[in-house]
Amino acid sequence: MATIVFCSVNKTAQTTARRCSISHLKRLARSGEPHLPLSCIHSKPVTFLPGTRWFSRGCSVRFMSQGTAGRSATWRTRKGALALSGAAAAAAAAAVAGFLANANHFQRAEMATKVFRAAEETEQEGSILERCRGFMSPPVTDISVLQERKEEMRTRMEMLIMETQADFCNALQEVDGGTFKVDRWQRNEGGGGISCVMQDGKVFEKAGVNVSVVFGNLTEEAAKQMRSRGKVLKGKDGKLPFCAMGVSSVIHPKNPHIPTVHFNYRYFEIEEEDGTKQWWFGGGTDLTPVYVNKEDAFHFHNTLKEACDKHHPQYYPDFKKWCDRYFYIRHRGETRGIGGIFFDDLDSPSQEEAFDFVTSCARTVVPCYLPIVSKHLNESFTDEDKDWQQVRRGRYVEFNLVYDRGVKFGLATPGSRIESILMSLPLTARWEYMHEPAKGTLEAEMLEVLRNPKEWV
Amino acid sequence: MATIVFCSVNKTAQTTARRCSISHLKRLARSGEPHLPLSCIHSKPVTFLPGTRWFSRGCSVRFMSQGTAGRSATWRTRKGALALSGAAAAAAAAAVAGFLANANHFQRAEMATKVFRAAEETEQEGSILERCRGFMSPPVTDISVLQERKEEMRTRMEMLIMETQADFCNALQEVDGGTFKVDRWQRNEGGGGISCVMQDGKVFEKAGVNVSVVFGNLTEEAAKQMRSRGKVLKGKDGKLPFCAMGVSSVIHPKNPHIPTVHFNYRYFEIEEEDGTKQWWFGGGTDLTPVYVNKEDAFHFHNTLKEACDKHHPQYYPDFKKWCDRYFYIRHRGETRGIGGIFFDDLDSPSQEEAFDFVTSCARTVVPCYLPIVSKHLNESFTDEDKDWQQVRRGRYVEFNLVYDRGVKFGLATPGSRIESILMSLPLTARWEYMHEPAKGTLEAEMLEVLRNPKEWV
Repeated sequence: MATIVFCSVNKTAQTTARRCSISHLKRLARSGEPHLPLSCIHSKPVTFLPGTRWFSRGCSVRFMSQGTAGRSATWRTRKGALALSGAAAAAAAAAVAGFLANANHFQRAEMATKVFRAAEETEQEGSILERCRGFMSPPVTDISVLQERKEEMRTRMEMLIMETQADFCNALQEVDGGTFKVDRWQRNEGGGGISCVMQDGKVFEKAGVNVSVVFGNLTEEAAKQMRSRGKVLKGKDGKLPFCAMGVSSVIHPKNPHIPTVHFNYRYFEIEEEDGTKQWWFGGGTDLTPVYVNKEDAFHFHNTLKEACDKHHPQYYPDFKKWCDRYFYIRHRGETRGIGGIFFDDLDSPSQEEAFDFVTSCARTVVPCYLPIVSKHLNESFTDEDKDWQQVRRGRYVEFNLVYDRGVKFGLATPGSRIESILMSLPLTARWEYMHEPAKGTLEAEMLEVLRNPKEWV
Repeated sequence: MATIVFCSVNKTAQTTARRCSISHLKRLARSGEPHLPLSCIHSKPVTFLPGTRWFSRGCSVRFMSQGTAGRSATWRTRKGALALSGAAAAAAAAAVAGFLANANHFQRAEMATKVFRAAEETEQEGSILERCRGFMSPPVTDISVLQERKEEMRTRMEMLIMETQADFCNALQEVDGGTFKVDRWQRNEGGGGISCVMQDGKVFEKAGVNVSVVFGNLTEEAAKQMRSRGKVLKGKDGKLPFCAMGVSSVIHPKNPHIPTVHFNYRYFEIEEEDGTKQWWFGGGTDLTPVYVNKEDAFHFHNTLKEACDKHHPQYYPDFKKWCDRYFYIRHRGETRGIGGIFFDDLDSPSQEEAFDFVTSCARTVVPCYLPIVSKHLNESFTDEDKDWQQVRRGRYVEFNLVYDRGVKFGLATPGSRIESILMSLPLTARWEYMHEPAKGTLEAEMLEVLRNPKEWV
């Protein structure tokens, strides 16, 4: 087993400490009693700074190399650099409790969005090495190579997807109390990935956040798939050197009142016969609730719309429609969920502007979803609610195995890491023969929305 | 709601009574106390005749027309014609208890096979109408049309698939104590089907036995699929009148020690430009256990082998290999189960002989499977056994949605009855990230067999 220890130093450690303290205080405020998460125990008090990110990042992750399932090595920030005693936490908790009690989830989301905007500026600041310290694992590409090619789009995108993975994982760990299992894997043909999975947690039934960075020569099958999407590509001796990378995630919560979320942001580069590079971005974020909640739907779509509107007024309306069209279970006549945005083959207006847009989208994942999770965290549910959730999970499986282009492509590609591709499947699902909710029920209301997609904003 | 009442008359009723009484006595012998199944309550005593079929047939089924889920009309044999009082049952039970206690399941299977052979002769005997009385529902084609075309292969095959459905459903009802929900459905383009589903029973989590008889003109998509299987077909103005019929079933039991079974027997007829008819048969029966049981595997394969050997010595070895090849989950590198037989495009040596072979196969379903069910009926199991079953169910879903030709064809064909196609999916399934049984466990033993198909006979 190759255990890779990736140490933190002062600056990152301090930032992490701040985040941990806030996240910890928020949990205290919620529960009303002081308790420290096992993954976040420190020995010295630190100053509590309001206004920083509202979720922890990189406190402690279990880190595993491929093939070591079942054994783990804890990857901690430097001992002693982070600290928060139980007593200090309890005192600080009292100070923020009032604020938290009054603020609603969506105000907090707005705050989070602002913080994210500030974070966007960090790309210019810190060195590659410094930024990597917050990740769930060292990036797929060697840090020295990333440093060297700092200005290249490949590097900037790899840094973005690694950052997105860490931000999202930390936000989920924060709310669940569980820890992601981190698997690094290598692809024989070139590249590899980092799969983070949390299974059977307190809040999440199954949460997967996957990064992959792969390169090599395009197979005939892959090339054909790409051409069918309108890309005319000329290879040298039939070979097309390519690089593809992305972050993708599916989160299935336990509580039927918390929706499932999925997102995926990716970048492709293909080198043609004459050496010119074709490139494009793709991605999207979409929500799959079990029951209709108009407030959640508005929040989710509006957060996406705001991120899109900063870049182009047509992005949200166009990509919203694309999303409804793409996540469609044809044999059922239903969409998978209430949509969001989806786009592909984005290669305009310029590489810089397209990347800026994708960056905005990726940084909108946490503020889109986490406030909805927090809102329904303690909502009670019945066995019937759970059954309906399980039936909807079955439809999720149907979409992913029958229609999802990514899954189909992955299953058909030799050398794919099947466990990372099928990570998107729920822990449990159900198929009832002739299941049809009675008229006037909340289940029927959900189906109506899935059969006739709505405008939420 | 169209309720179709289909009354029985004396001869069938008496046969049914005999079967019910035997089945009832067997249950009594098993449980050690007298209790009558709800679906089999009669008012007069009948003579107990040993040696008749060992499962009930057509005692009482809930019968529903399409779109009436949730409401049912009981379809019973003529009141008073069937009878077995609780007291008579208890007395007779004592008489057979010794026999049943000594006979093992596979001896009983042999008995059942013999009885089935006798049943093969009934095709010549009774009229179409008489034979229809034992079915789960009137056949898809009008009885008068069947009477008129009594000699045609279409009619003979429709009778065989209806009979297979009834025999299997009754055997399962017998062992479960539950009742199949019977749905008749029509296909706008021509034909229809009868779906029998029992869900969340005492023994079976989900049991589906489906008959369909469809006709019309082949779509471009369907024609292409058939051509890819080596059939060169010339249509008139691009149209190919066709008729396709079959019986198919998937049974998912609750107890992880009882395997899942699947079978499907089908017949195609296509009329070419010049009026000549192309025809072929296809089908197979295969077993998907959760744990390896060599005795079960031998019984299952040997029963199939015996049925095949009556017709051609190469049938079993060839169709066994074909089965292992077909039920292969490529992305997992595993077969779905331990196989059985599978064949397609069978159009030799003659239509008569091919039909005889298919008849033998169809009539082998009950003796292949039911003894295995009975054997493990009361076996205890742990939560871990159940979890492993659920993981295997997940793989079953993967095969059916990603590879199964019938499912793919069905989902892509407009006008298909989705609920009947997806009836094969289990009630519940599970996907655990990176699930890999520890070495030396029974789970690892199962995987080993799925990764390297064995010869069982």
